[in-house]
Amino acid sequence: MSKYIFECIDCKKHYLPGEVEYVCPACSEKQAPMQSLNGLLRCIYDYDQLAKQFDRSDERYFTMPGLEKWASIIPLESIESLPPLITRSTPLRPSTRLGYDVGISDLWVKDDTVMPTGSFKDRASSLVVARARELEYKTVITASTGNAATALAGMAASVEMESVIIVPANTPKNKLAQMIAYGAKIVMVDGNYDQAFELSLAASRAFSWYNRNTAYNPFTIEGKKTAALEIWQQLDYSVPDWVVVPTGDGVICAGIEKGFSDLKALGLIDRLPKLAIVQSDNCQPLVQAVLNNTAHVDPVESIETIADSIAVGVPRAGKWVLQSMAICGGSAVAVSDAEIREATCQLGHMMGVFAEPSAAAAVAGFRKLAKLGVIAHDEQVVVLATGNGLKDSQPILHSDQAHIDPIQPDLNALKQMMGL
Amino acid sequence: MSKYIFECIDCKKHYLPGEVEYVCPACSEKQAPMQSLNGLLRCIYDYDQLAKQFDRSDERYFTMPGLEKWASIIPLESIESLPPLITRSTPLRPSTRLGYDVGISDLWVKDDTVMPTGSFKDRASSLVVARARELEYKTVITASTGNAATALAGMAASVEMESVIIVPANTPKNKLAQMIAYGAKIVMVDGNYDQAFELSLAASRAFSWYNRNTAYNPFTIEGKKTAALEIWQQLDYSVPDWVVVPTGDGVICAGIEKGFSDLKALGLIDRLPKLAIVQSDNCQPLVQAVLNNTAHVDPVESIETIADSIAVGVPRAGKWVLQSMAICGGSAVAVSDAEIREATCQLGHMMGVFAEPSAAAAVAGFRKLAKLGVIAHDEQVVVLATGNGLKDSQPILHSDQAHIDPIQPDLNALKQMMGL
Repeated sequence: MSKYIFECIDCKKHYLPGEVEYVCPACSEKQAPMQSLNGLLRCIYDYDQLAKQFDRSDERYFTMPGLEKWASIIPLESIESLPPLITRSTPLRPSTRLGYDVGISDLWVKDDTVMPTGSFKDRASSLVVARARELEYKTVITASTGNAATALAGMAASVEMESVIIVPANTPKNKLAQMIAYGAKIVMVDGNYDQAFELSLAASRAFSWYNRNTAYNPFTIEGKKTAALEIWQQLDYSVPDWVVVPTGDGVICAGIEKGFSDLKALGLIDRLPKLAIVQSDNCQPLVQAVLNNTAHVDPVESIETIADSIAVGVPRAGKWVLQSMAICGGSAVAVSDAEIREATCQLGHMMGVFAEPSAAAAVAGFRKLAKLGVIAHDEQVVVLATGNGLKDSQPILHSDQAHIDPIQPDLNALKQMMGL
Repeated sequence: MSKYIFECIDCKKHYLPGEVEYVCPACSEKQAPMQSLNGLLRCIYDYDQLAKQFDRSDERYFTMPGLEKWASIIPLESIESLPPLITRSTPLRPSTRLGYDVGISDLWVKDDTVMPTGSFKDRASSLVVARARELEYKTVITASTGNAATALAGMAASVEMESVIIVPANTPKNKLAQMIAYGAKIVMVDGNYDQAFELSLAASRAFSWYNRNTAYNPFTIEGKKTAALEIWQQLDYSVPDWVVVPTGDGVICAGIEKGFSDLKALGLIDRLPKLAIVQSDNCQPLVQAVLNNTAHVDPVESIETIADSIAVGVPRAGKWVLQSMAICGGSAVAVSDAEIREATCQLGHMMGVFAEPSAAAAVAGFRKLAKLGVIAHDEQVVVLATGNGLKDSQPILHSDQAHIDPIQPDLNALKQMMGL
């Protein structure tokens, strides 16, 4: 007997794990093109049964590596299936400085910049590759512009599985280099992310490749929820008032809500954190849906932003995000490229953490919400730093600070330059 | 009373920590320009006294974060001085595949690509910044072309200390972006690394800035030795037969030897690992000194290589390295840019670890030594992966594999491209 079932978030129909693979067949049949996905599947555990087994003082939670410690509440048959790359919880770093001038003292940064492939996406890809092994797939495929793809390529390489990555032609170079190093089969399409997404679905059907597309594969959300579990443990088994989430497709948001919801269903916590969704002001379909309290997400045309990882005009997990906001409450905010650049440097200067623009966006959003009074001074806040700054250093290299005039290598020139 | 004294590695004279700061005054006075440094200082502990306190079953060694667990054998007054960024030992990853075709089955990769600023240099910079805090310096300075500088900038930022970085004009862009994000004061000189090195010494004397220059500051070596301590712990308190070290200035090599020598002096191990020094064949002064068994290191003109981090014509810790080789034994090997590129992909394909060229050089060197039979089939080998591939992805982007022709986003084009 499986320890979980799938529930369609739209029609609420239940499925056993063997019955369906990705989305609810009935609801996905009515899928309109260029819209948030219908029929996403939510893993539901036998919480009463699990609650009896769960002992948070169990030393496994301190000594087991990486995601293995959450074995009882992740949907795998065996933790042996997990790729070996994630060996530790990522740091939850306190910061007194980053919130000081906006009046927030109880601030923490969940630092996924030190994940094995440099991003939060390792959580999802690790679980997807584990599931692919259990289902005896030989090849995994995804459509992605970057972090999800590099994470999948790295996780697959670590267990001798083939990965096929469908990328649009505008994929950032550093991320491309990373996929090449991991040995992924890269298919570059003369088209956009949406076309890459459709092609990956067609290919996985045609060649029996396991599909990792974000949201579409329910294990992506179960993987991302592990960040919530770690935060709970790292805050000494308590719940922060807010989790601030940089948001593109919406799957990180969905994962954070799912993680805390699972803990609540297990009776381990008695409330949920509020969620703050942050997007670029050049591409903010989810922010608009939340602020206007609409029943569905209107897709938008994405305008260029330095935060490419969260610039998603058609958020695949849009419906789940709206449900998460209804469950958790919270707010949403859009930030400009200038604010993202400033936040990148604030995070670097004040904490020694170098984050990519999409991750720094969350810091910018947090500061904006604190200034607006949406986040109150006495509240505890966790900001997710979802990707390493080395993934995309162009925004900094194109900033004024990168214009450094060389000096002659002598002390007088140095004195003059530094005004000493 | 201090728990350690300094010993000059040349004249063997002893100093108390307050008496000297960087190098032996007597020996350094005779320093010739463009040569390995004279008078490097080695921290000597009261090993008999320490041995009585050291209990390897102490749970601190499992529960304390980062470098703090080694408090008893690092030269700090208080572990509270350490910057908060390093919170964990880096993974020691087993690899059955990477050594398979060269007949080595007991192979491990010490993965420092996931260090907070992405390199092994975080170990040294962490200890240097801690020492600067204990000595109440407000500013730290270094000359560097990359990883040491980014590590210093990040560590300093995390504790509100100012950092000044003197870089040659040819510093890789991604590393420059990282320093900017951390808020370092960057001084770019119209000159080479050696001129930057000299200017940093002059500036630290003139302005009372604490100098982190590699080897010159003895805490850099004490910081790097922590990798040896972690390897010992992670191999269940045993010593590998070989540690393979990518080598530029020679300080990582010195640190690994020092770490294992300390463990031996404490009676915790009864032998030392052999050291394999790996350099680029375009810049191999230490490899030549070791292979020719010379009494000193002849500086060379560095020719361009993709492994810029280890292309050091005048290895500052050259004298120490020769002593380490005499103490540990081992071998040395030079590798080509083509071999480094190949090793980058082997490490990525077979383990899901993306390393920068200088780090991949160690993998190339390991494979070469195994093929030559210098490393025997039944020996246990640890290879150091010292820097993240995202630090410098140009070598991959300029390789043939990066030439990917876009296809039309349809299944037929995909089939044709993949020969399916």
